[in-house]
Amino acid sequence: MKIEIKRSIFATNDQEAEAVRKKLAGLELAAVNLLASPGAGKTSLLLRLLALLAPKMAVGVIEGDVASSIDAEKIKAAGYPVVQLNTDGGCHLSAAMIGPALDQLGLKGPGIVFIENIGNLICPAEFDLGESLRLVEASVPEGDDKPVKYPGIFQTADAIVVNKIDLLGQVEFDPELFNSRVKVLNDRAPVFSVSCRANTGLEPLADWLIKQLTRGL
Amino acid sequence: MKIEIKRSIFATNDQEAEAVRKKLAGLELAAVNLLASPGAGKTSLLLRLLALLAPKMAVGVIEGDVASSIDAEKIKAAGYPVVQLNTDGGCHLSAAMIGPALDQLGLKGPGIVFIENIGNLICPAEFDLGESLRLVEASVPEGDDKPVKYPGIFQTADAIVVNKIDLLGQVEFDPELFNSRVKVLNDRAPVFSVSCRANTGLEPLADWLIKQLTRGL
Repeated sequence: MKIEIKRSIFATNDQEAEAVRKKLAGLELAAVNLLASPGAGKTSLLLRLLALLAPKMAVGVIEGDVASSIDAEKIKAAGYPVVQLNTDGGCHLSAAMIGPALDQLGLKGPGIVFIENIGNLICPAEFDLGESLRLVEASVPEGDDKPVKYPGIFQTADAIVVNKIDLLGQVEFDPELFNSRVKVLNDRAPVFSVSCRANTGLEPLADWLIKQLTRGL
Repeated sequence: MKIEIKRSIFATNDQEAEAVRKKLAGLELAAVNLLASPGAGKTSLLLRLLALLAPKMAVGVIEGDVASSIDAEKIKAAGYPVVQLNTDGGCHLSAAMIGPALDQLGLKGPGIVFIENIGNLICPAEFDLGESLRLVEASVPEGDDKPVKYPGIFQTADAIVVNKIDLLGQVEFDPELFNSRVKVLNDRAPVFSVSCRANTGLEPLADWLIKQLTRGL
């Protein structure tokens, strides 16, 4: 019974994700689903990437949060188009929320729309949002054991970003151990090390995104 | 339909939580449900608290993780009784898991059993585990906006711990702003500032736990 309900939720979501994909293609937009723990620095990462990508293409953001519009306000203040989605306690975004958010955003490509998912390393992994690729962001102070403890989300990543590398040496985080733990789960996703605070390491990630995403635009 | 399913899950969990409460009372144990983001430092906090409490009473740990037994191994290596629960992708512990874990732990009071919940600021908030009180642990590098973004979990806290205060000044975190944001949601929960790494601020929290929990033992 429980399993059947779960299956039906995923089947419905998959249908909605296909509809999102069609809508994105019609708008000449690629979508990036950004997943991370609370406080890993998702919005900081987006602000750095938007600054690098905006001179080259259309960019916009769909901000997912349980509550508040703090993140959307930061993106708006920086001058980028943004729509805030609040789940009111819900632990992940689902594809059905994305279509109306794209309509509201009004962005036209060629370009990239970033979807900042709810801060959660578990539930969002299971929901396809119609994205072109998934970025999973970890951060140095969270520790190097996150891939071992939350394997599901690292397995689904197309690329992994390690943020807050300016704190290396001040907390327990062994980059080599982290990378080897990722590799066991997912040997195709590149790992990018960045500090959004110090603005280091962002260009290789932006270049990789352009290379991956502009093929289909 | 969706709401009815949700209600039934919670009703079943509440019954199981009552059974856990009876079992704990029979063993003269109080239970602490520890909730936090991935990487906030739940296991580090437990290790510090266990060292302070063990000379005074029986202590033990039920470790909840999506996968792996890394945390249980740390607790075991420090010499404390521990049982590992893996949810295999599940985003929270539920009360039905606690009874069998208590049987396996074999701890007898008077004392405290700590339940380290899954690293997640959303789903675990809704599930009573039969605990005597809830500790919600935040950490400085996660940022001072977590109460605004994840209000539900802060509302249910009996006390809040801010870990990693050794990183203050190196990341964006205003302690006064954090406290005022907590206060709006929950004006009865004290906030304890600690650094598990530097071993500072732990005694007041341990004393508070003893005061709160040994009444009923």
